[in-house]
Amino acid sequence: MEVLKVSAKSRSTAVAGAIAGVVREVRRAEVQAIGAGAVNQAVKAVAIARGYLAEDGINAICIPSFTEVSIGEQERTALKLVVEPR
Amino acid sequence: MEVLKVSAKSRSTAVAGAIAGVVREVRRAEVQAIGAGAVNQAVKAVAIARGYLAEDGINAICIPSFTEVSIGEQERTALKLVVEPR
Repeated sequence: MEVLKVSAKSRSTAVAGAIAGVVREVRRAEVQAIGAGAVNQAVKAVAIARGYLAEDGINAICIPSFTEVSIGEQERTALKLVVEPR
Repeated sequence: MEVLKVSAKSRSTAVAGAIAGVVREVRRAEVQAIGAGAVNQAVKAVAIARGYLAEDGINAICIPSFTEVSIGEQERTALKLVVEPR
């Protein structure tokens, strides 16, 4: 599955649109963020996407977890937010 | 309902314990965070609390939204994370 990678510079409304599109299409979006600024943008995007999806009658929820990702030769801990209809 | 207020300096494991305790007792915890550092600690706490609650057979989910809070005379936008059994 495609993973939506969010950075501290990502626009939360743009990410929200992407999340809503993926949830509408395949019923599950996976968002990945590393660092406080990125996590903040990601959570704001999920809150906005919930509004978009509510218009389609979808009550979206979010499941946060930790995941290890490799960036070059470094292992970093990312936050993964799975967004799905409740 | 009691609101768990998280700051950038909150220990995510301590907040996670509080979230798990409230969800076990009243089936719903409300977490509030203002600013990227606080939101990051709050989401990490929810991810950790999910692990604690899973041990009790509770599959906890998270519902993020925006909320306006007054701090002194200032209006600030906070992120609210509601944690509930799915």
